[in-house]
Formats: sequence, structure tokens, C-alpha cells
Amino acid sequence: VFADAELDPVMPRDDLERLEPELRNALLSLQEELHERADRAVLVVVAGVDGAGKGSAINLLSEWMDPRGIRTLAFGAPTEEESRHPPMWRYWAELPARGSLGIVFGSWYADFFREAARKKPDRKRLARLSEDIARFESMLASEGVQLVKLWYHLSRDAQRRRCEELEAHPDTAWRVSDSDRDVSRKFKRLRAAADTVVQATDFPYARWTIVPSADESMRTYATAIAVRDAMRRRHLSPVAQPPKLDPSPDRFDDLDYTRKLEKDDYEAALAHWQGRLARAVHDPAFASRSLALVFEGSDAAGKGGAIRRLTHALDVRQMRIMAIAAPSAEDLSRPYLWRFWRDVPTTGRVAIFDRSWYGRVLVERVEGFAKPAEWKRAYDEIRDFEEQLVEHGTIVVKCWLAITKEEQLERFRERESVPFKRYKITADDWRNRRKWTAYRRAANDMFAQTDTQAAPWALIASDDKRFARVEVVKAIALAVEQALGIKQKKD
Amino acid sequence: VFADAELDPVMPRDDLERLEPELRNALLSLQEELHERADRAVLVVVAGVDGAGKGSAINLLSEWMDPRGIRTLAFGAPTEEESRHPPMWRYWAELPARGSLGIVFGSWYADFFREAARKKPDRKRLARLSEDIARFESMLASEGVQLVKLWYHLSRDAQRRRCEELEAHPDTAWRVSDSDRDVSRKFKRLRAAADTVVQATDFPYARWTIVPSADESMRTYATAIAVRDAMRRRHLSPVAQPPKLDPSPDRFDDLDYTRKLEKDDYEAALAHWQGRLARAVHDPAFASRSLALVFEGSDAAGKGGAIRRLTHALDVRQMRIMAIAAPSAEDLSRPYLWRFWRDVPTTGRVAIFDRSWYGRVLVERVEGFAKPAEWKRAYDEIRDFEEQLVEHGTIVVKCWLAITKEEQLERFRERESVPFKRYKITADDWRNRRKWTAYRRAANDMFAQTDTQAAPWALIASDDKRFARVEVVKAIALAVEQALGIKQKKD
Repeated sequence: VFADAELDPVMPRDDLERLEPELRNALLSLQEELHERADRAVLVVVAGVDGAGKGSAINLLSEWMDPRGIRTLAFGAPTEEESRHPPMWRYWAELPARGSLGIVFGSWYADFFREAARKKPDRKRLARLSEDIARFESMLASEGVQLVKLWYHLSRDAQRRRCEELEAHPDTAWRVSDSDRDVSRKFKRLRAAADTVVQATDFPYARWTIVPSADESMRTYATAIAVRDAMRRRHLSPVAQPPKLDPSPDRFDDLDYTRKLEKDDYEAALAHWQGRLARAVHDPAFASRSLALVFEGSDAAGKGGAIRRLTHALDVRQMRIMAIAAPSAEDLSRPYLWRFWRDVPTTGRVAIFDRSWYGRVLVERVEGFAKPAEWKRAYDEIRDFEEQLVEHGTIVVKCWLAITKEEQLERFRERESVPFKRYKITADDWRNRRKWTAYRRAANDMFAQTDTQAAPWALIASDDKRFARVEVVKAIALAVEQALGIKQKKD
Repeated sequence: VFADAELDPVMPRDDLERLEPELRNALLSLQEELHERADRAVLVVVAGVDGAGKGSAINLLSEWMDPRGIRTLAFGAPTEEESRHPPMWRYWAELPARGSLGIVFGSWYADFFREAARKKPDRKRLARLSEDIARFESMLASEGVQLVKLWYHLSRDAQRRRCEELEAHPDTAWRVSDSDRDVSRKFKRLRAAADTVVQATDFPYARWTIVPSADESMRTYATAIAVRDAMRRRHLSPVAQPPKLDPSPDRFDDLDYTRKLEKDDYEAALAHWQGRLARAVHDPAFASRSLALVFEGSDAAGKGGAIRRLTHALDVRQMRIMAIAAPSAEDLSRPYLWRFWRDVPTTGRVAIFDRSWYGRVLVERVEGFAKPAEWKRAYDEIRDFEEQLVEHGTIVVKCWLAITKEEQLERFRERESVPFKRYKITADDWRNRRKWTAYRRAANDMFAQTDTQAAPWALIASDDKRFARVEVVKAIALAVEQALGIKQKKD
């Protein structure tokens, strides 16, 4: 795919100067339109061989467009903070809002390209890295982020000449890095690697444009028209996967809602499991792991109370509770998992989600806040998200607190009668209650789709609050012990 | 101040249970009122001797109030990321928005208390830490953050007894840390230190409440009423400093606006200074420093063009350009420096502010967006902010690009006539131009107040763009060289 670029095509400077005003106009008005419509974000991915002038291309775009609507996202080797999170975390954190434009440099292609350029690339790792990219970009495209991917390339001679010219003068020599100097020696291998990368990741919804980079005017021109043409095109979403929603089994019928704990038994059992959980998260092995806890369930199922019993086993400095409410305007201007990625736990920490990303396939599905295509593809996206957490070493436990319809009614009435509990009950709760069956169906579909080995659901019969609280702490303690390989006598 | 608390007062459990509903009601309705008015944020600072039950107090507040409006901010030893920023950075980052409530644990008191508790405290350091706290809290109080400071204390015997009881059982033993065990041995010293801290930082606008902590019911009750009473009280702002705004000298008259560079000289000089700057920021000594650059100046003074010439000397991965526009709703719900603290550079990095925190004393002053009391106290706050950066090792250079009124008119007209420059000129620019004198006065006051040794202003005559661009890169290169102690032959 690089044959044309290696011809090192040249554009006379005069030609570029003649075309420049029109190009700049076009880019500026496209940017204005993007800002006004705010129907999508645009992410320009700048990649390619070292020493091809990628840096100048980034400068060019910030010069020709309105810098207030552009943000350059440049990534180097991961910082300590970054490496305490899954690899994709830093890219998620920086996703531009709808209506704005980001230029990514040192992107999620870096690892893939580096692996492909090794003397003996690890085929398996290559396949996995390429799948990760495909999933990430497909998610971005579906969630309203348009990808414009530019690969900078030039011939071996041109690359070497460019480096030599820069090196010849002390004022520009600093621009030439060791990896730039390496390029001409390893040129064949790097070109083959580039070929692998571009071929494997040229998706209909996220195409590569090869930018011939030997001549500055040509590089400038090719960059500008690639961005212009992409922004003019209608943003393509990946073709939706056929939904595989067979009727899901009803998991709620299996639960025994009559289970109970008397006060004394409760206190002993709770203290026991809190102690085990506390010892587990204070185990040295936990320092390189983390814990993400999801709490879902119908209204008044007792999530808050269970979370408080849980937190008694944790150091306030190592945990964070996220009470998830309706998304803010900022949240809505990004892919919906964005706000949850922000709160993913770092190593050694516990993140507790009181309601979670599952809102997408529960309340947003039932209330129609998400379109069918959106919540249907969310199962895949959520599985992918949780897999990334687990692969990074995060222990994921998801608790569903299940109560019967009768018990809910009783709790609603109690809430209404006790003044300091009244804030917990709103018209929304009564409205949701009328949709009991729809919520139950959504939950059953969700279990069928997301009860994975890596990140299982614990369904907990919660008509008795004491029983439920112990079960919650127990499920989490056992999961952490198991993940860390801590042996305990059976209970 | 701890005599009462060391009597270890007790409250019968029944009494608390009788009072609980009313207390919870009061707290919930105060929280609701806070949320609705959103006229301030509330920050509950939890501090005190170890082993006094601070953690339970935090749990209590989250249990009795609506957890959706509360965020626990718990700080331990600084992470690597945190230590790459000035000490206060992590507290700034977590400031709650107006209308919400934060509980701070492991706060800005930790260092002060630790120093005070040493066998031979460093008097100078103590004085400095206490001043830092006074400045920070005064700023918070002025900027609409109400501080509720709770100091947990109990007698030496009660503290020891509490630890022993917890340690006696394997399920609770984990709650007792080494520092808890240390307390009774060092009790006298710790109490004296606590006394120092509380006395030195009991400000009218940020009072301490001592919470007797030996008895759980008493601790709970005292915590609840302290928060309730503080939230009922009208939020106090510190008494404003008398403004010291004597007529400031006119710095613009000193500039020679006729200075010019011809194209060839320009290109040589620019390349030279870009090279020097590039070498300076690639110097190993820069790895533990950072660079914060501020660009201000009238409209059309050429800030954007100067910044682009500057960035040619920098690696795109080590810098970030912040184009500062009007504050967002999120920004407005915090102290105004909050959004700038977020973008403070980490070690080894360059942060470029295209307009900056100086907006407070320029556009916000002239246009009346900030009240006189607000912009007048901003000089102090800004000096304090920049001092913190410099103390941390950040090199701060502030460039003011100055053009004559005639030159501005010419540039405005050019912008209107070239289509791809038209986006740069709006009705606002013409409006601002009519307030030329007011802006100039504001700028002169700003120079008089904030042209400090640590963070100086460079005023650059910019009627000739080439001359200005070289001067900008030169000023920055020299500042970095000087800060790093790099010797160069004179130019």
C-alpha cells in the first residue's frame, strides 16, 4: 500500500500557496459545522514511520484550524499512573466531546506497530492487539466518534535525507531522535510492519489514508485534504451485529426469598466475613490487583445498606463509592462508558459502583433513553470493558440484590412513613414499580449476556436485609480470596 | 482545648436513638437546601488522633445523609502522579461543586500535624505549613467553599482501650494500625501537636469543633450536630484585604514598537532560539522541573502565531496547549483557579496557556463578570498559586504581547478581508477595542501586582510579528537556561 508514497511525490510550493486559502476556508467551515451540530467528535489519528514529519502535520492542523476546538492528545511511554490502569484507560480519559476535534499522537497503534516490527513478531499477540483495536474503534464509531487515520510514509532515501538535513544544523539536530536514525537501517522490516498494521485495521468506518511525506508541501496538502474529505463524508457506523437475544431464562425464580438470619447469627457472620474481606484486601498480593464492585437491583432492594456493611471492612483511603445518577451533559457528549472508565480502580484500590454501566441495558432500555441498537450492542461493549479490567488484574464482582414485589411494596410504604427515609422514595420509584415485568425481563437478558466467568453476577435473595448483607460481603470476600489464591478452611 | 474531650463523655445509646430521627431529618433537609441553592460547597474536614474512630464518623455521615450528594475524598501518602505536582494539587483536583458536600480524610493537615508531632519540630517549616493552610482555607472560604473542621479526640486510656478491644478479635484486629498502637506511647506529644494545629488554624471562617470520641454514641451525636450547626450558619467569608491599588505605572509606554526583523535575520534568529530552547528542555535537569507559559495580550496581538513558533521547539508529547475560553458551568461551580490547577504541568512537561488565570483581573474585571472584591483578591490568590508552582520546581514565564492601537486596527481589517482569518474576528473584538484604555489600566495594575521575581512578566513589543516571535522564544529559552543553570555564550 505504500508504493505510491515511496515515489516521494512533490508539490511545487506555489501550487500549495495557491490552494491554501480555499483549503483553510473549507477546514474552518467544516470545523464550525462540527461545533454547531455537535453530532459527533472527530479524532485524527497520526501514525507512520518515524522521521516522516508527523509533528509538523499536527502543527499544521492546529495552525489552519481554530485551535480552540482542537486538542492534541500525545501519548508516550505509559506513566506510573497510566500503567496502574488497563492499557486503553488513558485513551478513554482523553476522548474529545462531540463537536470538537482531537489529534492523537502515539496512539493505540504504538504497541501493535512495535510488535509487528520485531524480528519475530508474536503472531498471537499481534492477533490480539489487532482485535483490541478493531473493538475499540468499532465502539468509537458506533458511539459517535469519527476516526480519521493518517499514515505518514516516504521512501528510505527520503527519510534518511530528511534526518541528515536536520542533523546538519545544531538548531535542528535535536529533532532527530534515535528511533528516527534507526529507520533507514530497518526500513524493510518497518515497511512490512506498517503494511501489516494498515491492512489489518483498515475498517469501512475507520479508513487509513496514506500521506506521502517526503515533500513538505505535498505532506501538508495530503493531510489537509484527507481531513477535509473525511469531515465532509457522512460519519459511518459499523454494521450492527445481529442481536442474539433469545428468550432468557428467568433467574429470579431460582432464588429462595425466605432465607433469614437472626440478629446474633447475623452479627457474628457479618463480622466474620468483614474480617476475611479485610484480611484479603490487606494481603500483599492485592497491592498489584484491584477490585471493582457493581451493585444493581430493584429500588429499595437494600443496595445502600449492603454497601455500608461492606465498607466497614475497607480502609476509607483505599476505596471510592460512586453513586451513579443520570448522565451529565459532559457524559452524554462522549461514548457512554466514558464516565465509568474514569472511575476504574487503580492497583491496590476498591471501586464500588452503586448502580453502574448496566444502566444502559436496564433503565435506559426500559425507559427508552437508549435506542434498541444502542442497548443491544452494549452487551458486547460491556463484556469487552469488563474483560479489559480483568485482564489488567481487576477482580470484578457484580451483585444483584433481588426482592419480591411484595417486599418492595412494604419497603416503599415504610420509606414514606419514616421522615428521614422519605428522600429515598420518589414518584419515579412508583413508576418503575409499575414496569416490574419489563425490568425483570431486562435483568434476565442482562444476566444471560453478561454473567461471564471473568466477571460473574451474584444474585442475592434480599427480602431479609441481614441475610443479604452477609451474602454480599461473603461473595466478595470469597472472590478476592480465590483471585489471590488465599486458602481458607471451608465455611 | 482537649480537656473536655479527655473527660470521655458518654451518651446513653437510648438517648441517641431518641434523637436520631430528628437529627437525620435536619441533616437531610439541610443537604437538600444546599443542593437546591447551590450557593456554596461544604467540605467536612475529618482529622484528629489515630484510633479515635474517624473512619466510623465518615461512614455515619454517608449513612445519615443522601450518599448521592456526598463524596469522600481520602488521601494517603502521595502517589507518584501526585508527587509530580505541587502538594496542594490533589486537593484542588477533588474540590466538590457548589451544592454538594465533600468529606476530606487525610487532608492538608497531615504534614502540619506530622511536623508538629516530631520530637523537635522545625519551627520554620511549621510556620510555613500553617501559612499555606491559612491561605488555602481563606481562598476556599472566599470562593464559596464552607469548611466544617472536626477534630476527633479522646483520653489516652480510652484510646488504648479502644485499640485493645478491636485487637482482641481476629475479625476486627485489622482495624488497628501501627500508628494507632503508637498513639498511647506518644500521647503527650501528639496532644501537644494537636493543640498547636488546632490553635494555629482556628479561623473565624473555618472553625474547629472538637469531637469527644471515646463513646460511640457521643461521637456520633457530636459529629451530627457539628455538621448540622455549621450548615445552618450563614457561610462566612474572610474579611477582604484592603486593596492596595495605587495608580500603577504605565508599562506600555516604555516599549519600542518600531523594532523589526527582516525575513533572513528572523529565520536565523528564530532557528537559533528554538534550538536553544529545545536543548534546554531536553537537558536531563529538566526532567525534574516543568514549564508553565502564559500568553496574554490584546486581541490580534499575535499570541497564536507566537505559540506555534514556540511549539516547533518542543516535542508534541511533552507539551499541552490550553486555549482558555469562557468558563464552563462545571468551572463556575468551583473556585476560579480550579480549572487551571487541573492543567498544571507535571514534571518534565510544558503547559502553554493561550490566555490564562489572568482573565480574572483582565476581561472579568473590565466587563464586570467578577465583582470588585473578587478580582481585587485575585492578585493575592494568583501570586500564591504561582509561588506554589515555582516552589515545586515549575519555571513560570508570562508573556504579554503588546501592540499599538493603530496596529490592532490594521490587523482587524486584514482578518476581515481574508476569508480564512475571518473566524478570528468577532463583534466582541470590536467591542473590546472600544475599551482599550480600561484594558490597558487593568493590565498595568496586573503588572504592578503580579510581576514577581519568581514568575516575571515579559512585555514584548509586537507590532512586528517577526520581532515578537523571536523575543518570545528567546525569553523562554533564557528563563529555562537560567533556571537549570545552563551556561551559554552571550547573544
